[in-house]
Order: sequence, then structure tokens, then C-alpha cells
Amino acid sequence: MTLVTDPVAVQSRRTDRSGWDSGGSPAAVVLAESVPEVQAVLREANRDGTPVVTRGAGTGLAGAAAGTQGCVILDVSRMNRIREIVPADELAIVEPGVITAELDHAAAPYGLTYAPDPASAAMSTIGGNIATNAGGLRCAKYGVTRQAVLGLDVVLADGTLLKVGRRTVKGVAGYDLTGLFTGSEGTLGVIVGATLRLRPIPAATATLAACFDDIATAARAAAAITAAHLTPAMAELLDRATLDAVGMGVHRAALGVHGAGASGGGGDVYGAGAGALLLVQTDGLAAEQEASAVERVLAPLASSVRRASTAAEAESLLAARRGALPSLERLGRPLIEDIAVPRSRLGEAADAVAAISAETGVPVFTIAHAADGNLHPIIVTDGSPASADAAWEAAGRIFALALRLGGTVTGEHGIGVLKRRWLAEELGIESLGLQHKIKRVFDPNGILNPGKAI
Amino acid sequence: MTLVTDPVAVQSRRTDRSGWDSGGSPAAVVLAESVPEVQAVLREANRDGTPVVTRGAGTGLAGAAAGTQGCVILDVSRMNRIREIVPADELAIVEPGVITAELDHAAAPYGLTYAPDPASAAMSTIGGNIATNAGGLRCAKYGVTRQAVLGLDVVLADGTLLKVGRRTVKGVAGYDLTGLFTGSEGTLGVIVGATLRLRPIPAATATLAACFDDIATAARAAAAITAAHLTPAMAELLDRATLDAVGMGVHRAALGVHGAGASGGGGDVYGAGAGALLLVQTDGLAAEQEASAVERVLAPLASSVRRASTAAEAESLLAARRGALPSLERLGRPLIEDIAVPRSRLGEAADAVAAISAETGVPVFTIAHAADGNLHPIIVTDGSPASADAAWEAAGRIFALALRLGGTVTGEHGIGVLKRRWLAEELGIESLGLQHKIKRVFDPNGILNPGKAI
Repeated sequence: MTLVTDPVAVQSRRTDRSGWDSGGSPAAVVLAESVPEVQAVLREANRDGTPVVTRGAGTGLAGAAAGTQGCVILDVSRMNRIREIVPADELAIVEPGVITAELDHAAAPYGLTYAPDPASAAMSTIGGNIATNAGGLRCAKYGVTRQAVLGLDVVLADGTLLKVGRRTVKGVAGYDLTGLFTGSEGTLGVIVGATLRLRPIPAATATLAACFDDIATAARAAAAITAAHLTPAMAELLDRATLDAVGMGVHRAALGVHGAGASGGGGDVYGAGAGALLLVQTDGLAAEQEASAVERVLAPLASSVRRASTAAEAESLLAARRGALPSLERLGRPLIEDIAVPRSRLGEAADAVAAISAETGVPVFTIAHAADGNLHPIIVTDGSPASADAAWEAAGRIFALALRLGGTVTGEHGIGVLKRRWLAEELGIESLGLQHKIKRVFDPNGILNPGKAI
Repeated sequence: MTLVTDPVAVQSRRTDRSGWDSGGSPAAVVLAESVPEVQAVLREANRDGTPVVTRGAGTGLAGAAAGTQGCVILDVSRMNRIREIVPADELAIVEPGVITAELDHAAAPYGLTYAPDPASAAMSTIGGNIATNAGGLRCAKYGVTRQAVLGLDVVLADGTLLKVGRRTVKGVAGYDLTGLFTGSEGTLGVIVGATLRLRPIPAATATLAACFDDIATAARAAAAITAAHLTPAMAELLDRATLDAVGMGVHRAALGVHGAGASGGGGDVYGAGAGALLLVQTDGLAAEQEASAVERVLAPLASSVRRASTAAEAESLLAARRGALPSLERLGRPLIEDIAVPRSRLGEAADAVAAISAETGVPVFTIAHAADGNLHPIIVTDGSPASADAAWEAAGRIFALALRLGGTVTGEHGIGVLKRRWLAEELGIESLGLQHKIKRVFDPNGILNPGKAI
């Protein structure tokens, strides 16, 4: 166990990628390297009533991993071993600090993949993914993190090590505590190990990029894919504002104004000038056949459809998606929202987000996991307090929109601190009350990430 | 609300398909027809401390729906409306008494299917499926009931109506109460509505039947399918004893000794005389291609492989599986066990079950969902107390085996009353203690199906 005292190292662990800052000073930052160390920290904290904020890579987008006044920040990123990969059972046993993409790479030689792929996969940890029940680009076909978690090792508030779930694919003995811990954002226990389901790497993939005059038409096209009973592995939607920002990024990168931007082609590849871009990937033995079916569905609605004929071309088609966030980060400080609506209301939601942007004058860039109805309206601020206030005003309207359309204020990022205000409205007082009672069962002294998630 | 007083009707609701009988006399049997009626029953029961045992079709196999002394049996089977099918969102909103297969039939005209397909689908209800987190034949590819449940309406012990989950595919606001209720066997609340995910009907299916000299070889073949990174929709394994029973059923049916038996072909179809039969179904656009790949994997290990060329032939290949339980019911009273082991240990488990049968002299017939590692060793008794005792002795050894192999005592049927003895051993005292505390959060007076599930 290492106590972090270097002010820069402490400072870097005070917040997460949301940038939310409690203003308080953590009492200590601890780097745990083993389960007994985590147990020791919790036993002591529980005795003293010290809040414990667990963190992995700190890539969370809702403030759940941000330190608060007097807390111990428990950093488990050094517990990063892949303990076992069992190809015959298609599972892996890992520590919480394993980087998500590294697990996927480690599984690849066995022909296996770890399906959940949050956009942060190259940086985020498995523990954090489980704590937020992270989603990603392939959820519509392969499900979210919960569907990949077979079992967990969890240290409870009093330091007890609990094992829940199993190594089997199925099992219904007792209540689903594995599911309860998944997505609980560090408020019920500290995840110190996970048994994860792997899947075969798809035999093939096929990639399409379709441009549309506007986002409403693109959303209709995404709905038409569903209506045609096709199940792409990925269906990413980018609106005009995002495409323009990516285009500008490419342009500026080409001019050497900033470091690497989105690359790999001209305007027709990343969709600059289009009203919206829909990127679709199919996979499996019938990937090409399914892509052709998708193409037939998109063609009547799209202004253009391109299909990759090589892996390199597929990568260049995906460049706009990969380049989106870096491009927006060049424009200012992005606040990434995360609403989900019933899939059929995606177009309505995207249009309403654009209207909110127009009415409030706040720039909003929308990316969506179209097959999931999960929109990421990204609000870019200039970092000033006035800009932040305006952003939260717009965000509030976006959350209200999500609830009005029968959706949720968070599809995959979590509640953290930033969305707690809207939680009672979404869940109802009864449900929220039960959640607080469950919290007290696991954490009677309220030391685990207090003030977060529920 | 109807109070059932007819002794035959009361008697028929005192137990479930496990046949377990508490010996006690229920105080009343109530047929509820609406949510307010369920609320009224619970409010009153909660005030009086009366146990409430909820039931749908009574097809449970672990005694969870069996009535106990002084309880109210709350039958929700008349709450059986499909309220909404929303093709654009691929979801259905249903009451708990809807028969599982009927939902699937209702979705079919929209090109959609309800994927969970417990063998009881033609009789069991959605509410019961959710209460046990039922599995079925297509789980390896499509997941268990939990993966199909987006949201629930639940009446709590005090009569409060709670809504959990959502209509969106994704959502991570708050703890996963939907998952907590799923599989809780009526001990946390009464499910009065469900929002369920539908999926496109696969574009095609292909069916194979492979015979093997013994079950160990068949299990190796199933493992080889996994190792080849193929994901069949179904992989059902039947052992020699079961095949002989099915064969006898066909023979006796042909002689008119009993009603309809397994039908549709001669010995080569249902596998009579073989040491084991593996039935594999692939589906999707590449169903035929995937079936060919499966065939190539099976051929070196199998004594024969047959592939259906028509739907009728596929049905006749599946006849052995469909005929298994009816055939065993002709031999005596089947006690259907339900262990799951890590997939790689399927063959070891099947061999050990056969050894337990040989050692104890208790006839055990094994069917398995091979791709899930989920075995159903079926013990057939003659109904006498001595035979039942011997059956439970063998079952106890089978449960110990499952735990020794890193598995579970119940893959998909639930704990009910019949497996409670083994629960602490599987879950550990800590985990079980937490479950009891969670139970008290939801049901402080302990009226909901006391003595069951945990």
C-alpha cells in the first residue's frame, strides 16, 4: 500500500473526467496493491467513519470518482493483473485495475473478445466499467457490462471479502447481488476482482458510412434498420455540428495547428458538409450479407452510402466517430451528456436537443448509439462560470426531455454527483427510498462514496 | 377478485410441478384480476402478518409456489393481457399471467420473438419465468429471462405499487432493482407487469442431430463447438438412459399402450441405441453456413450426424428432446434437477452423475443444455417414500458434485424449498446474510413467500 503525498499526484486524483470538483480536500490518497490492503483501508475507515472514494483510471463522466472533503481516495489501478483466461469456459478472471482494452487484447490470441467497449476502453478500467455498468458501441448486439459480469469479489464497508456470482453461464441461487453491485458506483462495496464472460471474435465485420441531409432522416434510417429486423453490432450517429467540428479538426490538423486530428480521408469520408452521418458495422459469418441488407434499407433515405472494402477503409470510415471527442476538445471544455430514449424516439430526441441548443444559444454536438436510443449531447463550454451555468441550464432541459420521452438521464455513464438532482424525478420517491435502505444494509456507517449515485 | 372455495380448485393450487407438499392448509386461495386487487390482498395480509404465496401456472420445479399452513395463495394467472407490443422499440408490455409461448405467438406477426424459452413455455407464465429467472433452450445465444426484462411493476408487501426499470434498452440510473426482483421467487414483491424485450425472429434456422458412443464423447463434441468459436442457438444433450426411455415411449406409443409419445421417425431419428445424442440448432442469416461448421466439428467424434433439410425433418430430429419428459413421466414420478457447471466440465459432470446413479441404484436420466453447462439429471421415483428418500440421497450427491466442480445447485429452476439446504454452502454465510437483510428491507413483516428462495 502506498500513501500518495506528492501534491500533483494527489491533485490528479481529486476529480474524474467530468472535471467536477467538490472544492474539499481529501484526507489521503492510497494506492492499494492487494485485497488485504483494500480490506485494511475499509476496516479503518469504517471504524472512524471516514468516507472512501474508490477510483480506477478516473475516466468517469459524472463525478462518481471525485474526492470530497476529508475522504480517503482509494486508488485500485495498481491491482491490474489478468489472473486467468479460460478459453474453454470463455471467461477471464481479473483484478479491477485492468484496462478494458488490455483485457480484450489479452483474449485475442484465444480468438476471444471482451465485448463491452466504452469509448474510453483504452484508458478506463474494468472495475470502473463495472461500477458504472458501462456501455459502448457494441451494446445493441452484445449488451452492456452487466451482461459480461458472471461474478465479483467485493470488499464490503466493514472490510469483509464477499464473493458473489459464479463461473457458470447460468445460475439462479439467491438474489442477484452481482447485478446489484454492477452500476452501484462504489456505494455498496469495493470491487476487487471480477469473473467476466468473453465471446468469440466475430468471423468477419463489414462497415458502412451513410450521409443524410439531416439528423431526423438519419434517425429514421436507423429505425428502418430495426424495422427490417437487422441487428448491427454498431450504429453510430453524428449530427451536423459534430461533423463540422471533426472536419475543422481534420483541416486544422492538416495545417499543423494542433496535434493529430481525425485522419484518413477527405470530406466524403468523415461526412463534413453532411447533415448527419450514420456509421454501421455488422459482424459474424453473415457480416457482408447483413451489410448489404442494411445498405438496401439506407439507400432510399441517404444522400450517399459508402461501404468499406478493406480494413483500412473501414477504419477511415470510422474516423469521424473516433475523431469526434478530440475535435470537440479543441473547441473548449466538453460536458458529455448521456440520455437514452425508447429507440423509436431517437429522431424526436435529436431534433429537440438541436432546438434546445438553438433556444439557449449553447452549442450542443450530438453523437448517438442509434440502435440503443442512447444519445450523447455534448455541450462545449469555454470554461468560464457563465458558460458553465448556461451549459447546466441546457443540460437540465435535455434531461427533462429524456424523461418526457420515457427515457433516462443516463444510459451508460452513471449518476455520479452531476445527475443526482434528476434522480428522484426519474425513479420516483418510493424506488429511491428503497435504494437508500439497500445502501444502509451494505454500508450502515455511510462511508462508501457518500453523496454519489443514489 | 375471486375467492376459490371449491376443494378441488384449492387442492390444485396447493403445490407446483415439483409435487412438494408442505402438509399445511392454506387459509385462502384468491384469484386476482387487477393491480388494485393485488394491492388490497397484500395490504391486508401485511397488516395481519399472513403469508402470501404468489403463483401463476404452478409449473415451478422447486416448490416456490407451493402453499403453506395459513397462507393466502395469490393466483395472478387471470391477469393475462398483453397490453402492448411496440415493434419499433422491440418490446412488449404484459401482465404476469400471460403464457410465455402466447407472448411469442403474439409477437410473431411483427417478425419478433420472445427469446427465453423454458421447456414449460407452453404452460408457464411470464410472471413465473421472471420470478425464477427462467432459462430455456436458447440461452447460450440469447440469454436468460433477466436479459429480456427491461422493467417491472411490482406490488410491495405493504401494497405500494413500485415501477422499476424502463422502456429503453440501456439505463443506469440507480441500483438494478429490476435484476433484484428477477429470480427472487415471490419473496420481495408481487410482479404485476413487465416490460419485455423482443428480438427479430432469426432469418433462418438449421438443425443437426449427432449420435455418440457415450456422453463423455458428446460432451467433448459440445466443447469442441465452443472451441471452434461457434455459437449455436441450441445445443441439447441427451444421455443413453433418456434415449432408451424415449425409444421405449415411441415403441409403447406405437403399440397404443399410452397416449401420444415421441413421434416422427425411427430409431435413427430419436437416437435410440446411441450412447448420447446432441441436438444443435444454429440460426440467423448464416444458419446453414454455421451448421456446416458445426457438422465439421462433430463429424470426427460422432457415430452419425444428420442434418434436417426441411422444417418437418428438423421437428423430427428434435422429437427426442420434446419427448423426453413425457417418456420419463411414463416410467414414474420425475424429480428434475438443475445443476450448472463451468462449460468445460460438462462431460465430467455427466459421467459423475451416471456414477452416482450406478452407486445408489437410483435411475438418473440426464438432459443438458450443453452450451450453458446446465444439466438436468432427472431422477425417476415410483412415488413410494423409500424411493423418494433414495432420490433425495442421490440428489444431494449431485448437488455436492455441482459445487465441487465450481457450479451451482440451480441453473434456471430456482431454489424454492427443495434446495434451500444447499444454499448456504453455495453462497456462503456472508452472502446469504446480506440477502436476508435485503429481504427485510422489502418485506419487514416477512409475509412474502416465507421459507422460500433464500
